[in-house]
Amino acid sequence: MNAFQERRKRLADTLAPAGLAMAVFEDTEGRRDPSIRYFTGQPSDALLFIAANGKSILVAWDVNMAAAMASVDKIEAYTDFGRSPYKAVSGALKALGTPTGSKVDLPAATPYPMYLRYVEENPDYDFICSEDGTSKTAADMRAVKDADELAIYRTVSEITDRVMDAVEMGVKKGELRTEADVALFIERALRERDCESTGFDTIAAGPSRSFGIHAFPSYTAAPFAAEGLSILDFGLKYKGYTSDVTMTFVRGSLTGKREEMVALVERAYKEAVAMCAPGVKSRDVALRVDAIFSEKGYAMPHGLGHGVGLEAHEMPAVRSREDNTWVLAPGHIITIEPGLYDPEAGGVRLENDVLITDKGHEVLTHSRIVYL
Amino acid sequence: MNAFQERRKRLADTLAPAGLAMAVFEDTEGRRDPSIRYFTGQPSDALLFIAANGKSILVAWDVNMAAAMASVDKIEAYTDFGRSPYKAVSGALKALGTPTGSKVDLPAATPYPMYLRYVEENPDYDFICSEDGTSKTAADMRAVKDADELAIYRTVSEITDRVMDAVEMGVKKGELRTEADVALFIERALRERDCESTGFDTIAAGPSRSFGIHAFPSYTAAPFAAEGLSILDFGLKYKGYTSDVTMTFVRGSLTGKREEMVALVERAYKEAVAMCAPGVKSRDVALRVDAIFSEKGYAMPHGLGHGVGLEAHEMPAVRSREDNTWVLAPGHIITIEPGLYDPEAGGVRLENDVLITDKGHEVLTHSRIVYL
Repeated sequence: MNAFQERRKRLADTLAPAGLAMAVFEDTEGRRDPSIRYFTGQPSDALLFIAANGKSILVAWDVNMAAAMASVDKIEAYTDFGRSPYKAVSGALKALGTPTGSKVDLPAATPYPMYLRYVEENPDYDFICSEDGTSKTAADMRAVKDADELAIYRTVSEITDRVMDAVEMGVKKGELRTEADVALFIERALRERDCESTGFDTIAAGPSRSFGIHAFPSYTAAPFAAEGLSILDFGLKYKGYTSDVTMTFVRGSLTGKREEMVALVERAYKEAVAMCAPGVKSRDVALRVDAIFSEKGYAMPHGLGHGVGLEAHEMPAVRSREDNTWVLAPGHIITIEPGLYDPEAGGVRLENDVLITDKGHEVLTHSRIVYL
Repeated sequence: MNAFQERRKRLADTLAPAGLAMAVFEDTEGRRDPSIRYFTGQPSDALLFIAANGKSILVAWDVNMAAAMASVDKIEAYTDFGRSPYKAVSGALKALGTPTGSKVDLPAATPYPMYLRYVEENPDYDFICSEDGTSKTAADMRAVKDADELAIYRTVSEITDRVMDAVEMGVKKGELRTEADVALFIERALRERDCESTGFDTIAAGPSRSFGIHAFPSYTAAPFAAEGLSILDFGLKYKGYTSDVTMTFVRGSLTGKREEMVALVERAYKEAVAMCAPGVKSRDVALRVDAIFSEKGYAMPHGLGHGVGLEAHEMPAVRSREDNTWVLAPGHIITIEPGLYDPEAGGVRLENDVLITDKGHEVLTHSRIVYL
């Protein structure tokens, strides 16, 4: 059994106990869902049907791509269903021999008007659509990386470290002078190392823009790593999985507010990473960082971290909101990314990817604050 | 009245006749909707409420960004509603003085579970969510560009033309040799010309990959513009609006199937553009191209074109499917992009942006097939 088969089997095994006959996944423009890549290897644009008996059908926009990349019981062309998701569902229900009257679980992202149309076009089935359905089961599964995924993270973390080393060297040598220089250096470097793309738009924010959490636009022709604080937040996507790191570059004398902010972020980062271990509530880690900052009169305007995987932001949550009930477990890969921002002093953020292990944690990437 | 106020007024004026008291727009991770930028200037991450009386409230994730970029009656912070869209809607209903019992139109993309929760948390209102609601009104409005948008398209088309000239020169001089060379040249050039980003992932597909409609990954370290057919499909985003052009590079002798495909695409492109005029059904233009190709035994695996604007793909539709009922009108900006693909010969596609004028059309960008 390959990893895709194993994942589909695990998902299928949850269906009958939940009273479900079939689960539907959809990945399309406006509603991206890399769970289809997780369960089959198909990178995008498809519908996936998994029945309680374990059988699966992939309906792909591009069947040539599916033939080359997907591992699944059966591949069908979306054009064979007139590019209609409703007809594709009807077809899958028949092909998988789903008894009429049974429950079919739709993606939690299904728009309300589409839900009504699924019901209308397949009146003999009972369509379910909830935030606690198979969308959540898939998200929970994806939060705990399996052996294949851990191997991919070993590689992408190693590549990310090398790219960070090269960026630091390029900045120190004066070869990378603008936000665009740095961002485009990364774009080229990742392709020379067999990565697909960045995992999200690289944020390169020089001293004039580093006070924003998410600079807009994400990088420009403005100077980078000039006097003051500059932030570089990027991720590399390898075999679908993204890393996510943030470096801060400090140029010039570090005094006053800047000195205090950098020291606080370094301290918060160290204490947060040290707490990462199975059984620990991720909310408690985030609350600890909030406390370190608030003690000195600062507040962090974003969450402490998040899971990474086929998406840049996935489960588990790592933030101090009350609704965060996640308990860290072996196989979770999360970011720890404390940051502080000030309109005049600029911004500082330090972020690495941390694997939760059986006994504690392992820091996979090695970002740092760079002093110039 | 600035353009944003005018657009909001036009939308607000459609509400009462449709029996609606308030329209809701949402732009968030997983459900992007640049209609909020269209109506206010806020680039992303917000909820927008427009009441039938014309009043509007923007609930922004980043209020500093909103203060700098948004034109709207009132700005509120999403954190003030505990980052809950349900609470934000309740707040807006109160702040706008919406009488209980009235109809509130939700975005057509609202997931079914969220719809239920809106209803549950605001039982005194009647929530509507359909594909024919204000989401469609906004899409229809955005399809016809106003004076401000036309001015932006003059500029972005000019910049796109200059970047295409520079790419052609770089390829001819041998300075741009790989897919990454070309794609990263564009990324740098656009930022030096005050554009925000590309409008979508640049597709640079050398001869070994040009047969795919959408190359995956979109560009790699592989050779570009080597012997055979190479495709370059890109768009530049300026003040939110994207251009969309495709160049094909032909290197070496053009014989047999390649010669035939290139000639057919050039002919189809010319005939399609010549047909563009107000009152013409866009489906008829697409059917004409289908006929040109099928006469010689070819078929195009994608639509002939699409509207462009704040999204790379928007209304009007320009394809031969029966459900396309669009009639071209002054102010529409559409792509015309016939293409043919063969696993051995490679792919050829030619694409420009065409403005529909009062009397006919104007080709805004000047892509071409480049012979090396």
